[in-house]
This record gives sequence, structure tokens and C-alpha cells, in this order.
Amino acid sequence: MALNVTQKLIKDHLVSGKMETGAEIGLQIDQTLTQDATGTMVMLELEAMGLDYAKTEASAQYVDHNLIQEDNKNPDDHLFLESAAQRFGLYYSRPGNGVSHPVHMQRLAIPGKTLLGSDSHTCANGCMGMLAMGAGGIDVAMAITGEPIYIKMPQVMGVKLTGELPDWVSAKDVILEVLRRHDVKGGVGKIIEYYGPGLDNLSAMDRHVIANMGAELGATATVFPSDNEVKRFLSMQDREDDWVELTADRDATYDIHEEINLSELEPLVAKPSSPGNVVPARELAGTPIYQSYIGSSANPGYRDFAIAAEIVKDRNIAGGVSFDINPTSRQMLTNLVKEMHIASLLQSGARLHQAGCNGCIGMGQAPASGRNSLRTTPRNFPGRSGTKEDSVFLSSPETAAASALTGEITDPRTLDFPYPKVTDPSEPNVDKRLLEEPLPYEEAQTKELVKGPNIASIPAMDSLPDKLNVPVLLKVGDNVSTDEILAGGARVLPYRSNLPEISKFTYEDVDPTYVDRANVSKEKSGHAIVGGFNYGQGSSREHAALAPRYLGLRAVLVKDFARIHWQNLVNFGVLPLKLVNEEDYDKLNKEDQLQFEDLRNQVENHDTIKLTLPNSGEEITAEHNLSDRQREIIVSGGLINWIKERQEKEKA
Amino acid sequence: MALNVTQKLIKDHLVSGKMETGAEIGLQIDQTLTQDATGTMVMLELEAMGLDYAKTEASAQYVDHNLIQEDNKNPDDHLFLESAAQRFGLYYSRPGNGVSHPVHMQRLAIPGKTLLGSDSHTCANGCMGMLAMGAGGIDVAMAITGEPIYIKMPQVMGVKLTGELPDWVSAKDVILEVLRRHDVKGGVGKIIEYYGPGLDNLSAMDRHVIANMGAELGATATVFPSDNEVKRFLSMQDREDDWVELTADRDATYDIHEEINLSELEPLVAKPSSPGNVVPARELAGTPIYQSYIGSSANPGYRDFAIAAEIVKDRNIAGGVSFDINPTSRQMLTNLVKEMHIASLLQSGARLHQAGCNGCIGMGQAPASGRNSLRTTPRNFPGRSGTKEDSVFLSSPETAAASALTGEITDPRTLDFPYPKVTDPSEPNVDKRLLEEPLPYEEAQTKELVKGPNIASIPAMDSLPDKLNVPVLLKVGDNVSTDEILAGGARVLPYRSNLPEISKFTYEDVDPTYVDRANVSKEKSGHAIVGGFNYGQGSSREHAALAPRYLGLRAVLVKDFARIHWQNLVNFGVLPLKLVNEEDYDKLNKEDQLQFEDLRNQVENHDTIKLTLPNSGEEITAEHNLSDRQREIIVSGGLINWIKERQEKEKA
Repeated sequence: MALNVTQKLIKDHLVSGKMETGAEIGLQIDQTLTQDATGTMVMLELEAMGLDYAKTEASAQYVDHNLIQEDNKNPDDHLFLESAAQRFGLYYSRPGNGVSHPVHMQRLAIPGKTLLGSDSHTCANGCMGMLAMGAGGIDVAMAITGEPIYIKMPQVMGVKLTGELPDWVSAKDVILEVLRRHDVKGGVGKIIEYYGPGLDNLSAMDRHVIANMGAELGATATVFPSDNEVKRFLSMQDREDDWVELTADRDATYDIHEEINLSELEPLVAKPSSPGNVVPARELAGTPIYQSYIGSSANPGYRDFAIAAEIVKDRNIAGGVSFDINPTSRQMLTNLVKEMHIASLLQSGARLHQAGCNGCIGMGQAPASGRNSLRTTPRNFPGRSGTKEDSVFLSSPETAAASALTGEITDPRTLDFPYPKVTDPSEPNVDKRLLEEPLPYEEAQTKELVKGPNIASIPAMDSLPDKLNVPVLLKVGDNVSTDEILAGGARVLPYRSNLPEISKFTYEDVDPTYVDRANVSKEKSGHAIVGGFNYGQGSSREHAALAPRYLGLRAVLVKDFARIHWQNLVNFGVLPLKLVNEEDYDKLNKEDQLQFEDLRNQVENHDTIKLTLPNSGEEITAEHNLSDRQREIIVSGGLINWIKERQEKEKA
Repeated sequence: MALNVTQKLIKDHLVSGKMETGAEIGLQIDQTLTQDATGTMVMLELEAMGLDYAKTEASAQYVDHNLIQEDNKNPDDHLFLESAAQRFGLYYSRPGNGVSHPVHMQRLAIPGKTLLGSDSHTCANGCMGMLAMGAGGIDVAMAITGEPIYIKMPQVMGVKLTGELPDWVSAKDVILEVLRRHDVKGGVGKIIEYYGPGLDNLSAMDRHVIANMGAELGATATVFPSDNEVKRFLSMQDREDDWVELTADRDATYDIHEEINLSELEPLVAKPSSPGNVVPARELAGTPIYQSYIGSSANPGYRDFAIAAEIVKDRNIAGGVSFDINPTSRQMLTNLVKEMHIASLLQSGARLHQAGCNGCIGMGQAPASGRNSLRTTPRNFPGRSGTKEDSVFLSSPETAAASALTGEITDPRTLDFPYPKVTDPSEPNVDKRLLEEPLPYEEAQTKELVKGPNIASIPAMDSLPDKLNVPVLLKVGDNVSTDEILAGGARVLPYRSNLPEISKFTYEDVDPTYVDRANVSKEKSGHAIVGGFNYGQGSSREHAALAPRYLGLRAVLVKDFARIHWQNLVNFGVLPLKLVNEEDYDKLNKEDQLQFEDLRNQVENHDTIKLTLPNSGEEITAEHNLSDRQREIIVSGGLINWIKERQEKEKA
């Protein structure tokens, strides 16, 4: 059977399931990527799992998100991550080295491999003929221990590219066109695979731009073939030997078809506050801007900065515009410096920031109140810039640089000079020290984790007891969000690597007495929570399951669950129970005792769980909907215990 | 009479008083400098004073401190300051343009002029033959309105420099040597004037390094002559016409004598946690470092970065060292880029940050817990780096770069290669847009202040009433600090431009009911506070007087005052009363009414103030210690009213 690139990648890594749309498949993971914001918890999970040494072919820990060092917390995290990388046999990229996705592409990406990353833009490395997917932190921790990842077999949407991009139009306009057509949910349940003759005119970094923002389509992954352009890119990085060809079979087919003629594209802009809110730049011409922002993993290439530099060279940016340059990596910055592009940017009036994610994730360069910001970043969700009620537009570097010159959103085709041509640096700097090599196994075993005062190990958690007699500490209504369970934001997030501290914020707005009562329950046999419909909606943050579990939560009984929180409860060993009869919700009250008997057997061998209310004598039935693997996980007390037991068995 | 440079500068600007040590003298101010952290309140004061247009020869508003834009507050401040500069006829330097002191030196400093700045390192511009002094915000606001500044005539300490600096020793080692000899109080009540043949071997920027850290000696100012080197410096900035010669007369004398033979100096380091804690670098050799930090107004010169670049060129910094480069200005960064010094730094492994004060004032690059940081900055006070219980060492760029290579504090003379020579850039970039020109008077009058949601005008405050009948809302003991009156820190300081908001934190730890009760008093005739000895000790922050005044504070009765807080109370129209009989403290109780009669007359024409306690019938006498000018200020209701009245008279 003729296969497309996606099918080849999946087939090569399939460990369970069938390649039929919607079926659960298990995929072997070759490489992982973690960044610092999610990585500290991943490393603490690896510690709790008792991992000896990474079992992947290559796993890299990057520091690119939290680079602002206003106190000890971020630098302490950096040292912790470095020590964890040494301890567990990971590559390590220091603060200032650059953004994970382009650095990974330059130093580690190998066509034909799978990559799982605890960052939603991990899909960017699909530009290298890889199957690259974003995931939750503990999924990546699992992959590092050698476990496969389980996903539903997606549909493959083939996007045929023809033609060639006109002057002033670049790769960002291609993905903005896809978003214009399909909007931010258009990729859900799909892998987007690009092919066709148009690819010949898109460099590997151009493809990175397109692959990266597959995340904004909601896609599982973005896939490009590995062709001669990928070979050329790898040889520029002194890595020609890592190239393998990977292209679709001649008669390969796709589940869904799409076609874009590059020659017909024009400069596009996504208006506030969604990357799918795309219109031609010309329609917004004249909109005043406060900021023009160049950088991020959505426009990380040398050419993305160089073209901006050529556009503003020997010109002055408009008064009142903050022209912010956020280099992608030290290697790229060095090349831009050597080729005098940084000088051109500075002389035009730019502000040059350190290499990293920076303002793309709200860490610096927030715009002023009520002012428009035009950015080459991937996202303009409300408030993501750091400023509440912000007004962020997304565009190509061409459009952003042209607008910096005029002070208003400008279709770059209306500038009164010809489109500058950018060429690769004549003697490109290759900075192999962007990644520190993993220590060899023996040396790694001698290393200890370096934990600043704000970093705490995840305490051991017990397995599921056979008898459970716990009080209901909280009864909540419908649509409780993970924000209500555990808030995000600047007050809470600094404790993301400190479970005992972050757990103190659990349910604080719903019931400020919960934490104290939960701590009492923890000393006994724990507690339960009762909820209504759509329990745990919203942000996917794992701490919303981990923190109450740390406080003694053993079971949640609800009318139904939001999908991701349900998954997180399972991962951290909290029994997720859906009432078979919704009206039983009314029988359950705060402070009621719940009594479970023969519980391990019920979980392992039955689809429903019976429990009694000793005071009223009522019996209640709930279903758990767990797969065989998940039954094991719940009985073990969560993924960490489950993996730990496997590690120990393996050693023995 | 033969005069030294300091005496000439003072004589040329004397508007009142005699040049006798300790006597109060009034000095006309030619130029002012404000930065963003202190400048927002200065601009609000100018607004409240009703200023039409700056009356100085040149006043510049810089944005260099709060460059981290994590939300709307800092960027809103930037826009506010830009609009205020336009409104009041000031130069404006945008975020990213650079640190105030070196930019002022390059673009505005003129030998023979006086400069007053709301930044303690304003003394840096003494390197240009100026009398440059740091001051409180409202003093600078006054100077902008054309008022003189009043100081006590300082002693002049003449430091004769002879010889020439050896290889690996530079200007920072000169000022560290002065600090080693005289410590951090050695300059109090003094102006330090440098002279002698050794000057021939110190560039204007080298002298800036030395002048800058006069602040660390506690000196009123640092003064250098304006000689041919200053002329050379100005011509490099396309400003040769601004040069005037200013040197000491042949037979000039000094009050205090000191001499340094530059040839005998060696690399020095100030140990934690005082700039006066100076020892030879060799004594600390081998001390491990986490960070090497190049930048700040204490080592702002092109050569300071270039020498570091030459030292690390084609070498790698040690593993685990964060090598942080903080450029001084866009102009300097551009020159460093063009001469490939930035490329050398990056290739060695450096992190390049935006131009500004950054980590020098705790805005970024805080070190990890328990790790040593070696910096070219001027200060290593405990916690100033942002990390509590930090361990910060100060040194020259030579020592910092050498230590970055080895990973431990290193006397750079022990490196195994010859001292690199740095030359000025062949075609130096002069960036005249570092300062936006003031608008002409007529255009300025059309401008409005742009106030984000966190910026509030200072409300009008009334003049001193003739009869005052106020309750004592608070009775405190001895040594109450301004931190207790109004805390600093990350929770409170973001409201520094918002008096109604920041006042809500007043006395919160001492008596959380104070603010509510004060707000009630404000609706009536206000209130008083009673205290013991040394009231208002600690930080000089003006908000500790302004916030309670906003809340209705009219009089403070204490056993005695800390000097600066006393001055601040006067400036903001709070009657500062010292009990003539200390035992009267015991007669005064919380909630007592205090009754003042014929108050304006008492202040204007008597040295003591009588008040009665209507409940007990007791009469109490207090002294106010106000000068004639201060009597007027108190009667007006504070400096803002006093100036406003003068502005209005002038217009009429």
C-alpha cells in the first residue's frame, strides 16, 4: 500500500493498535524535548519514578521560557534542570542558548524519528520529516523512561503546495492562510502533511514556521517530507550524516485534501485575539501600532531576522514604536551580528533582547495599555502578552518590519523600495555548545539533583488501599474549572516546582478551609470530592490533579468529567468516578463518609465501583471508564508508582 | 585667590550663602536628569506645580531602570514619561536607548555646568568638569522649575593621581582603591576632586567609572577637570563646540589631601556585601563563581566591554558560569557589534541583554541561591541583586572576564596570554536619536500627559489652616523606620506613580486600622501622629511623607526626627514638631484631640508652636526648626503649593 510520510512515521513506531482513524495506537518515542516551565516537574517526576538513565535515543532539556531573573527562583530552576540533565543522561541547553524548537532542529532533529515534547509547539520539528508532538509533562516523563505514548489515530490532511511565494510574502503567510481557511480548531484530530512542488521553494526553516503553528490549528502534528532541502539544512549544521530521505510514496493518499498556490498569497495578519482571525494586511493598513516584535519559534530563522534588518537598514523606525528583536539562539544571533544585520536593526532604533521565548510567552515586552502590538509570534490569545485586554496582531517579519517603519500596520508591498534579497551567511557559525552532551551512564549515576529552596521532591504516594473510608470534604456544582481547583498566574506559578507550597492554594476561592481540612484527612485515610457536570474543565495543568492528591484526595465522584482533567486524575492515582445515576449527586453531602470495600478487585476486574454511605446505608454505583493499563495505574497509586515498580522489576 | 575646579564650579553657580565649609549655599542648576523609577513622581510633581515649561538649560528624562515589561505597568510608565517630556520641554530617552549617566555624558554634558539628577549615580558626570549631584525627586522637580538647590558647603578632598595603570588594571581598580582606603562613609560631606599627571592616562570614560562610584563613598559629588581629553571625547560625539576648558588654578589647594600612584595599583575586588569591603583579587583567587556580569554605569565604556571581549575571544567561558553582558546604550552596542566584539562575547558563551541598568538595580540576572556573582556594577548591598542573602563581588571588566574563563575569581594577571590592547572604533557610530529633542514651547503647551490606569495625578493639597483641631491617630515608639511607615518591595513599589493606591499600604504592619481611620480624618480636618526618638529613620523614600499627607496627616509630634524624613515632611507640608519637653510624650495618647490656634502666625514668626489638649487642658510646646524658606513652604501646604503660587505670580 502506498503510504504518505505521516503513515510511514506511524508505521515505523507502532507498538500497539491499528492505523485506523480514531483507534488507540501506541507509538515508540525516539526523542524528547522539555523546556524549563514544564521541565522542572518532569524532572521531579523522573526522580520520583526512580529513573536511572533516559531510555530514549536523545532527550534534551532546554531553558528558554523563564529567563527573567528577578530573584533566586528562576536561576535556581536553571541549576536544578542542569543537574537533572546530568543525572538522567539528557542533553542540556543553558539559558541564553535559545528557543527549544529551532535549537532542537539544528542540533538533534533526525528525519524519520518521533519526538515528544512538553511544549505545545513541539510540532515545529515536523519540518524535518519527524513525527513531533506536544504533550503533558508526565507523558514526556513516561517517554523518557522508555514507555510508548498512546494517541487516537488521527486523520491525515494533505496540503498540496504549488507555485512560488511572491516578493514580500513569506512562510508565515502560508500558515496564516491555512488558519484563515480552517481556523483554530481545523486541525483537531488531524495531522497536517505538506507536499507538492511548492515545497521546492520553502527552506527547512520556512517549513519550521509552517509546522510550528500547526499547534494553532489544534493539530496533533505537522509533517513535512525529508528531502534534499533537509539534507542541505543538516549539512549547514555539520550534521549531513543524520540525513535520511523520507518522502510519500508516489500513489500516497490523504484523508482530507487541501491545496495552496503560493503564487497567489498576499501578506496576511491575524487580528486580536485569535490566530485564526486572519485578514489581508492591506485591510488593516493605517492601524497605529505601539510595538513591532520580531522573534519566537514561529519565525525563528536567520532569514526572518535578516529580512527585517534589510527592510529597516539605513532607515529610522517611526517615533513611538518599540521595535523589539528577540533572537532565537546564540548561534543565530552570532550569525546576524557577523553579517551586520544586528547593526542595521540597532541603527534603525531597535531594542535587542536576549535569545529566548521572552514576550512570546508573556515574559517581557508586554505592550502598554490600549495599544496595538504587531508580532511575528504564533499566538495572540487575550492577555498572553502580559497586558490584560491587550491588542496583539500576528504577521510575517516583512509586515512587522514595514509597519515599524511607518508606525502603522502596513502591507509591505506598498513600501517604496524593492524587496530585499537575503542570502545565508557565507561562513555560518555552528555553535555545538548550544547543547551540552549527556553524561555517560556511570558518571551520571554519581550526580545529585541541585535543589534551591523553592524546589521540592514529589513525596512518595501510596497505592490504592483495598478498603477506603473517607469523608467528602467538598461538594461543588457544574463546570468547575482547573483554575478554580488551582489558579495559575504570578502568585501561584512560581511554586510550580514545589508541590507542598503550591498545594496550599488548592480550591482557595471555592473553600478557603479545604486545605486545612484536607491536611487533617491526609493523616488518616484521605478524602473525596463530589462534583457536577464537566468537572475540571479549562487549562490542562497537571497540578490541578497533583496538588489535591498530595493533600489526600483519593476519589472524585461527579456527573461527568472534562477529558484532560480526568486523564490527569488517573495519572496521579485519584479514582475518577462517574455516577451511574446522576440523581445520586443529591444523596451525597459534605462531610458524608464514603465506604469502599474490595476496592482493588473492583477496579481491576469490574467496570463499576460500588460504595456505601454508612450513615444513611445508601449504596451508590459509579463507573470508572479505565483501560486495562489505567486500571493498573490507579491500583499502583498513579503513573509515578506504576513506572517505579516497572523500573524496579527491570533492575531486579 | 587660587581656586580648584570644585570651587570654580560652585562660585559660578552660587546664588546664596558663603563658600565656607558647613555653611548653607544655594546653587543654580543648569541641567537635570531623571530616570524612570524616580521620574514618574517628578513628572507628577511638575504637573501638580503647574509648570509650563522647564526653566533649566537642559533637562533629560531617561528610561533605563524598569525595562522588564511583564504587564502594562512599566510600558505605561514609559509612555507617560514620554508625554511628560513633551509637555514640559525635556529631552526624552526611550527604553533601549541606554543608561542615563553615560548617555547624558555623550549627548548633553557640558563642562562648567551644574547637573542635578534623581539618581544617586548622577555624580558620574563629574568626569566632564561638571558639578553633578544626586538628589531626591522633588529637589529635581524644583530645579526644573528654576529653583536653586540648597546644600551645606562640602569640604573638597583633592586626590592627586600620578603614574600610569599597569596592564590588567583599569579605572575600576582606582575607585576600588579609594574605597579600600576611605570606605563607604569616607566621602560624606565632601566633594572628591581628582587632579595630577595621572589624569593624562585616563580617558573621559575611565573618569566616568571613578566619578560614578563617588556615590559609594557617600560623597556629595566627584569632580574632574575639563581638559584636552574631555575635548577629544566631545569631538568623538560630534560635540566639540560644547567644550570649554576648566582646570584648577596653579596654586589651588584642597581641604583634604590624598594621592594615588596608578603604577602601584593591582586588580581589586569588593567582597560581599559592601563596596568598601575591598581586597586584592589575588587574595580571593579560586573562589568559585556562578556569574560574571559586565555592564552598568560603573563600567559603561566601550573599552570596558571591548576588553572583556578581547579577553574571552576565541576562548570558551567555564561551564556553569552565566556570563551576562549588559550594554550601556544602543550607540555603544552598535559600535561593539560593528567591531566584532559582540561576536567574540557571544561565541565565548555570553548572554547578551538589552541596553539598560538591568541587574545592577535588581531587574534581571539575579544569581541563584548560595552562589557567588562577580560584577562590574557599583554596588553589592545585601539583596540588591534580587536574590536574598546573595553573595556579590565587584571588580573591573578585566577581572570579571578572566574569572568567566576560569569559573573562579581570578587575578587577570595570572592568565597565560598578554594583556590585549583595545582601540576606539575606527568609525564610531554617533546616535543622536538617543535623545529626542524637547518640543518648542508653543507645541509643548498643546501636549497632554498620557496616563495609563496605574498613573494618578497628585491631588491638590490645602495650605496650612490657621486653626487646627485634629486627633492623634497613631502613637508609636522610638526608631520607627520609613519601611514601617510605607514598605518598599515588589508588592508596594509598582504603585509608586499612584498616590491613592500606594497610600493604602501606609503603616499597614504597625496598625492595619490606620488607613481607614485616616481616610475618615481626611474628610474633616486631618490628623496627627505622635512618635519617639529618631522618627522616620532608614530609606529616604518620599512616599513615606507623601502618602500619610495624602491621608490627612497635618502634624507629627516626636522626641526627634531622622534628618531626611524630617525634610520630606516639610516638603510635603506636614508640620514636623519636636517636643521641647520629652516627657510630654507621655501626656499624648491615641485618640487625643490636639488644638492649634493662630497657627500660620506661629509658624511664620515664632520658633516654637504651642498646642493644647482640650480634654485635659494641658498645653504643650514644640519647636519646628524651620528656615525662613521652609516656614513659607509649610504655610503654603508644601513645596508643590509653594512653587505653584510662584509660577502663578510669574504668569500674572
